[in-house]
Amino acid sequence: MFFEELGIYYEVHGEGKPLVLLNGIMMSTASWIEHIKILKNYFQVIVYDMRDQGKSSKLSIKYDISVHSEDLKKLLEHLGLKKVNLLGLSYGGQVAEIFASKYPEYVDKLILSNTTYKVDNFLASVGEAWKVAAKTYDGESFFDLALPFIYSKTFYNNNYNWLKNRRKIFKELLTKEWFDGFIRLASSNLNFDVSNEIEKIKCETLLIAADEDIITPISDMEFINKKIKKSEMVIIKNSGHAAFLEKINIYCNIVKGFLI
Amino acid sequence: MFFEELGIYYEVHGEGKPLVLLNGIMMSTASWIEHIKILKNYFQVIVYDMRDQGKSSKLSIKYDISVHSEDLKKLLEHLGLKKVNLLGLSYGGQVAEIFASKYPEYVDKLILSNTTYKVDNFLASVGEAWKVAAKTYDGESFFDLALPFIYSKTFYNNNYNWLKNRRKIFKELLTKEWFDGFIRLASSNLNFDVSNEIEKIKCETLLIAADEDIITPISDMEFINKKIKKSEMVIIKNSGHAAFLEKINIYCNIVKGFLI
Amino acid sequence: MFFEELGIYYEVHGEGKPLVLLNGIMMSTASWIEHIKILKNYFQVIVYDMRDQGKSSKLSIKYDISVHSEDLKKLLEHLGLKKVNLLGLSYGGQVAEIFASKYPEYVDKLILSNTTYKVDNFLASVGEAWKVAAKTYDGESFFDLALPFIYSKTFYNNNYNWLKNRRKIFKELLTKEWFDGFIRLASSNLNFDVSNEIEKIKCETLLIAADEDIITPISDMEFINKKIKKSEMVIIKNSGHAAFLEKINIYCNIVKGFLI
Amino acid sequence: MFFEELGIYYEVHGEGKPLVLLNGIMMSTASWIEHIKILKNYFQVIVYDMRDQGKSSKLSIKYDISVHSEDLKKLLEHLGLKKVNLLGLSYGGQVAEIFASKYPEYVDKLILSNTTYKVDNFLASVGEAWKVAAKTYDGESFFDLALPFIYSKTFYNNNYNWLKNRRKIFKELLTKEWFDGFIRLASSNLNFDVSNEIEKIKCETLLIAADEDIITPISDMEFINKKIKKSEMVIIKNSGHAAFLEKINIYCNIVKGFLI
Repeated sequence: MFFEELGIYYEVHGEGKPLVLLNGIMMSTASWIEHIKILKNYFQVIVYDMRDQGKSSKLSIKYDISVHSEDLKKLLEHLGLKKVNLLGLSYGGQVAEIFASKYPEYVDKLILSNTTYKVDNFLASVGEAWKVAAKTYDGESFFDLALPFIYSKTFYNNNYNWLKNRRKIFKELLTKEWFDGFIRLASSNLNFDVSNEIEKIKCETLLIAADEDIITPISDMEFINKKIKKSEMVIIKNSGHAAFLEKINIYCNIVKGFLI
Repeated sequence: MFFEELGIYYEVHGEGKPLVLLNGIMMSTASWIEHIKILKNYFQVIVYDMRDQGKSSKLSIKYDISVHSEDLKKLLEHLGLKKVNLLGLSYGGQVAEIFASKYPEYVDKLILSNTTYKVDNFLASVGEAWKVAAKTYDGESFFDLALPFIYSKTFYNNNYNWLKNRRKIFKELLTKEWFDGFIRLASSNLNFDVSNEIEKIKCETLLIAADEDIITPISDMEFINKKIKKSEMVIIKNSGHAAFLEKINIYCNIVKGFLI
Repeated sequence: MFFEELGIYYEVHGEGKPLVLLNGIMMSTASWIEHIKILKNYFQVIVYDMRDQGKSSKLSIKYDISVHSEDLKKLLEHLGLKKVNLLGLSYGGQVAEIFASKYPEYVDKLILSNTTYKVDNFLASVGEAWKVAAKTYDGESFFDLALPFIYSKTFYNNNYNWLKNRRKIFKELLTKEWFDGFIRLASSNLNFDVSNEIEKIKCETLLIAADEDIITPISDMEFINKKIKKSEMVIIKNSGHAAFLEKINIYCNIVKGFLI
Repeated sequence: MFFEELGIYYEVHGEGKPLVLLNGIMMSTASWIEHIKILKNYFQVIVYDMRDQGKSSKLSIKYDISVHSEDLKKLLEHLGLKKVNLLGLSYGGQVAEIFASKYPEYVDKLILSNTTYKVDNFLASVGEAWKVAAKTYDGESFFDLALPFIYSKTFYNNNYNWLKNRRKIFKELLTKEWFDGFIRLASSNLNFDVSNEIEKIKCETLLIAADEDIITPISDMEFINKKIKKSEMVIIKNSGHAAFLEKINIYCNIVKGFLI
């Protein structure tokens, strides 16, 4: 479906308590296909592409990540949802932190997964690396350059053929427009720092970390855990920044268990 | 309720898929009171005291931990349960490993929590320390000697009054009979080693570890994780060997999410 | 040799830059025998028993751990040493922190090994456990109760016979006087907290931690590392709180490398 | 100096027991400038550029990493050195492992730093990423793409200006020839696997790992540690794959302490 006002593509699956999933920077609604199959049996699952992602409109000018938090508010109003469960992953976790700090009344329970509270020099440099990779405008080169640090070493060693196939899909799907959108997204959070905001989050919060996540390591997640009053944290073993994809079943089980 | 044949005290709470909880060595059915409140809304929860625990009969002679696996089989038969979800914690996890290796047909899904596959020299020495502590036949001394290594450093620092109160309860409740039963239990698993058995476990298995667990550390759990084909592992942050009690909500949520 | 004024037994070995080793709570000059053999080839090694340890006098009344820092100052004056390298281990590390904060002019380079900046509720409870164990006035019971958490799991599993032999030595050597002294030592640091003092330490500092140290874990050492300006930290793999004894060679090598 | 037979550039600094330093893949003799200043006071330090590195000759055809092990043997013979201390870092550690397994008689003590025993799919993918980055033939792009995963997050956050300056140096120094050599080097170890060879290493061995090393993590180093009989392992805290450069002092101290 399409939210015309902002040009946002979204999907609604299943019935029950609404659960909104916020994409990581390289993701789209399509990334959640397996999770939706599981979660729609328990929740009304809402996925959408942020502007500059997937099938949503392009933003074209320089913007701040907080744009997506305002977009989310408008989307919820459009959908008539006054209170939702919110799961934000990586970049989507940053959006969720901004949103839950500013609009706490909209959030029932919050899940922050493989994300951070601040783009420090290290993460800015990772973002820069990704932008340089994107500027090749070649899906395979982008895959080769950016992906080894997103999946865990364990996953690379056990799923090499799956990854090689995914590399081909990148080649086919990533267009010039996609890369330009990605570059804008990767430029939007260089000043992201909610270290003094997240203590405003009062709702029950679950943090999902991964032991081999080198982009947003356990120490980043633990900082958030200490700041949010009603948070608890679990670590998925033998998985990386893409734990949601590396360990689909256990990931969905943890989400289910927290929300049901 | 009481299973007369073996002298086993048990309780059944709620309705739904049966879920049997196997106590750790110092525990009894009473240890699960908060978990039962939560889990009985989703499952038929069965808790029981192993012989030499709580309100069950005493064994009085030297025995091997596998006795409890056979007892479990008889209890399930008595209850007319042909297939159950099984959660074994610490010593109860060892019983669960023996049971699930020998009687796989009885186990639907398996949860192993804060447990090991082998009593090595370190664990034998911990067991010896606990026996020496038990031989004081004094609840407070036992608490002082044995408990600092069961809860996490984090929990000790955040829940000191709760712990001090628990120390008084130990004083009141732990009788000569309890200590003698405990000593027998702590003597029953010195030869426990299922490192070559657990690969027979084919059912979906969830491993729950804790990052500050120094009795059965993550490395022990990871050994099990590698051996069992369909296992996955989560680590509860900022908790110790008694994670089930230190983090009741997140613990129950993980259990729920895996079994629902 | 004997420093009569305070009744302190001490030994001086070798020549070169003076290096003073401060014992952990259960230790004495005898604990360093292997280290002295190595280190005396490079340094003038000074070991001594704090009052209430080994061959030094007993203190008999309740006192604060800072007593030992003042004693150290007097001993150095007695020996005519104006500036020394200082290595403090566990309880001795606490003494070293007090001393180096208060008398920085005496310290050339500082090594803090397997120690903490604060006795929190967890460590107070460990101390209480040790006192209860000491009150058995039996070396073997004390060994059984206290030692499993001092050596690493790895060391227990690889050196069981050595440990069993050490248990016998405890039986022979630990007298009523020793236990009473130990109990006073273990009572002296309940208020120890130098979290706001150690930033005064300006000398080059090396922190030696151990990955299986559950008494003073890496997180405690890292807190110190962050507070002291010119500090660096190494972790000895596969060792516990007694890393100095579990890994004598690598331990001495790290010390040598830092001081030479 | 120049070893004409192979076209290998080398330098000899200081006097004493010979210590040969083997470069990581992106390094050259120039990378050790600060270490040489320290270590030459204790050892005869020999550094050299492998073929396809720095000032040495180019290899031009496809080859296996073992070439460099044979080159090392010839260089030692040329220098008349029958037994040396050997420090191999990352790629140089792989060369050292091949050399010490095949020519144990040449090695006195061995130091393996931030290296692995096998190029698995993950490391092959990292190598592929580096090759794609090298094919930009642009020093700044290469820096942006490859470096964020070589230094630790901690180092990135504390030394951003130093890194930005280094980026400029990359721009100036990395030529077409350098990139082509790098690509050949990065292609030479795709089949590297000494998991069954390294148990032949009988000399005293020190393993230096880093807690934030995501290229050759602690688990890789621990595998080596378990295989080599007389090995011990230390971990440098708050450093990454480039620990040797991030923590020059502590790194040299550990080396000194082990060899003196």
